Amino acid sequence: MGLSTAAYSPAGSPTPLGTATARRRSVHQFLRPRRPLLATVRCSVDGAAAVATETPASRKDCFGVFCNIYDLKAEDTTKSWKKLVNIAVSGAAGMISNHLLFKLASGEVFGQDQPIALKLLGSERSFQALEGVAMELEDSLYPLLREVSIGIDPYEVFQDVDWALLIGAKPRGPGMERAALLDINGQIFADQGKALNAVASRNVKVLVVGNPCNTNALICLKNAPNIPAKNFHALTRLDENRAKCQLALKAGVFYDKVSNVTIWGNHSTTQVPDFLNAKIDGRLVKDVIKDTKWLEEEFTMTVQKRGGVLIQKWGRSSAASTAVSIVDAIRSLVTPTPEGDWFSSGVYTTGNPYGIAEDIVFSMPCRSKGDGDYELVSDVLMDDFLWERIKKSEAELLAEKKCVAHLTGEGNAFCDLPEDTMLPGEM
Amino acid sequence: MGLSTAAYSPAGSPTPLGTATARRRSVHQFLRPRRPLLATVRCSVDGAAAVATETPASRKDCFGVFCNIYDLKAEDTTKSWKKLVNIAVSGAAGMISNHLLFKLASGEVFGQDQPIALKLLGSERSFQALEGVAMELEDSLYPLLREVSIGIDPYEVFQDVDWALLIGAKPRGPGMERAALLDINGQIFADQGKALNAVASRNVKVLVVGNPCNTNALICLKNAPNIPAKNFHALTRLDENRAKCQLALKAGVFYDKVSNVTIWGNHSTTQVPDFLNAKIDGRLVKDVIKDTKWLEEEFTMTVQKRGGVLIQKWGRSSAASTAVSIVDAIRSLVTPTPEGDWFSSGVYTTGNPYGIAEDIVFSMPCRSKGDGDYELVSDVLMDDFLWERIKKSEAELLAEKKCVAHLTGEGNAFCDLPEDTMLPGEM
Repeated sequence: MGLSTAAYSPAGSPTPLGTATARRRSVHQFLRPRRPLLATVRCSVDGAAAVATETPASRKDCFGVFCNIYDLKAEDTTKSWKKLVNIAVSGAAGMISNHLLFKLASGEVFGQDQPIALKLLGSERSFQALEGVAMELEDSLYPLLREVSIGIDPYEVFQDVDWALLIGAKPRGPGMERAALLDINGQIFADQGKALNAVASRNVKVLVVGNPCNTNALICLKNAPNIPAKNFHALTRLDENRAKCQLALKAGVFYDKVSNVTIWGNHSTTQVPDFLNAKIDGRLVKDVIKDTKWLEEEFTMTVQKRGGVLIQKWGRSSAASTAVSIVDAIRSLVTPTPEGDWFSSGVYTTGNPYGIAEDIVFSMPCRSKGDGDYELVSDVLMDDFLWERIKKSEAELLAEKKCVAHLTGEGNAFCDLPEDTMLPGEM
Repeated sequence: MGLSTAAYSPAGSPTPLGTATARRRSVHQFLRPRRPLLATVRCSVDGAAAVATETPASRKDCFGVFCNIYDLKAEDTTKSWKKLVNIAVSGAAGMISNHLLFKLASGEVFGQDQPIALKLLGSERSFQALEGVAMELEDSLYPLLREVSIGIDPYEVFQDVDWALLIGAKPRGPGMERAALLDINGQIFADQGKALNAVASRNVKVLVVGNPCNTNALICLKNAPNIPAKNFHALTRLDENRAKCQLALKAGVFYDKVSNVTIWGNHSTTQVPDFLNAKIDGRLVKDVIKDTKWLEEEFTMTVQKRGGVLIQKWGRSSAASTAVSIVDAIRSLVTPTPEGDWFSSGVYTTGNPYGIAEDIVFSMPCRSKGDGDYELVSDVLMDDFLWERIKKSEAELLAEKKCVAHLTGEGNAFCDLPEDTMLPGEM
């Protein structure tokens, strides 16, 4: 065949390379958690799970091929890489995460010189699915993805994390009131806030996606008093992206021409997509789109109904574009905001320059130097129409806050939410 | 509030920006298809679908915001971009595509200076889901994604495409024989081959993912005589990636240390993951992994069973890692192969240097200069153990070819496939 051929000679008795345990790397030194240990920590592949030996002071925690030792400093291609970033993702076995995790691993979020560790938080019920996700991450051979661990205890999974992307939340059951959902999910975010407070990096950035995300973020930050409140975000970026797309469509331009779009308020039907400050090709939207009726009535409705229309068409909720908007939200914090533009994020209102009630989480316009932090934009236009709608969303968030007083340490809850303001297409 | 405030004054009567039709861009000049027109072509958003007016010589074809005019040459940031690449994806409403389309749009496949047009092929049944996917692509605001169109007629969707990623295929029904699956899916790929032959770019690259992918690719290329047979690929990259991961795991190294892994043969249980030529840290695998029994027996089994284990764990098939492997397969053709390494692809055997039967599609080791083309690697090791297994996979593909003779223009089909060689976890 004209090929070089190595004689085939079977080796003698197999020589194992050493036990799996010896090769396994101690990724994390776990403090004893503050509450009973729930997590099953495994280093497994293809069903051949091996429960890592636990010692009083430390434990090994990794998945499959990610248990292997590596030394970034020893390689020409990797020695200039940044220090490893630890990213926790809750709801890691769900569909949004199934898109997001691979985006994180590919380098498109944090850059091609930023190695990452993914710490997947799931539930007892979803543990096998978490293993499946970890297997698919193994099979994807992403060079930047250096560590993957899975667990069901936030006190373990959040250990030393630099980012916590809190996607997991209970879906609303049939007939469940929004108040009940606030309570159920609020409890989850209270627990996760406590865990972050106990074990995460002191400068962890927290992005809450699980709904109702603004109030969940508030609960989370209230339970994490040792982490700056400024570090907590509720995701309204998908709403911003949808608003930009609809403005582009109406103006007959490509979406890259739309800037300065703010989503104000709650991630609910009281949210306020702001067309007063938005720009198209650098001009105020009102100078480009003369159809004021559309701007005042249809625009907001269209943005809000988008998720519901998508479910009708596609039969599933918008996991892919939600994951894209999470990527956008993170990138907006780790890359400098383009000159003159801004982005929306649900952030803590205390100290805000707009006169919005303090001590809630409210989506507002932000700018970042790319250091993970942000500042609120002060030079925004305001008119009565915009302000009245902002006040309505503020009133809703203040009412939601009263519903969860038992979870924020502010006394007894009193819940009076007249309307169902869940966005169509969201649980 | 200390904010600049623009007085709120409602505009007079709304001034529409011109009709949607006037703003709509003629993306493609469609030749009349060679067969009855099946496609519904729409420019729609949020359910407000507007069927584009058809004229005898041309028609408009686009989705939502992607109908808007843009001029890449007019912008500082985009004028250095490459010429638009047209990419068709079949099975576009399915889960693999749901991952892949967003990867294509993000620029991670073709690069950050390569604008792309996505042409989504679905079925009548999946048309609404296609609209949902297009809506999520709109909402993702990817700057490189300049055009999206959806359709159900390959003669329209494949018009001028530079890449055709053929993911869609019928799943195997309960009790269906592999021969029946070969026939049903073969028919789809015969039709798509004819359509590519009629309307695609003369240098279109075709990647077949739908199973049985090797024989589907053969059928496709036989029905596209005006397109070089060398341009057709069957996806075996997920198998390669899985093999690399398992070798890394066994050797106790990170997966970036594993190179020169070939998957030989059919994407079925007769496939041959090649550990003879594979290297770990530049050394032959056999010099690193001394457990020959594992290499000869368990390694191949583990690679092949991976998809089945994943379904057990995760409850779904491996859409995410399949999409990653499609990205890898394309990138291996559009970026130069690293010195000394290679990648696997199911390609046309005629002229191969190994002595494998001609005129089938067989996975073999390839190298590329990054121009979209490839050459087979000639300096590979061969031994009896490897060769015998290659011959078994070759025999299977020759038998599959006989089953589809009626679809390749080679007379009457005669089908005698003794074993079920579908990979676990694949339909």
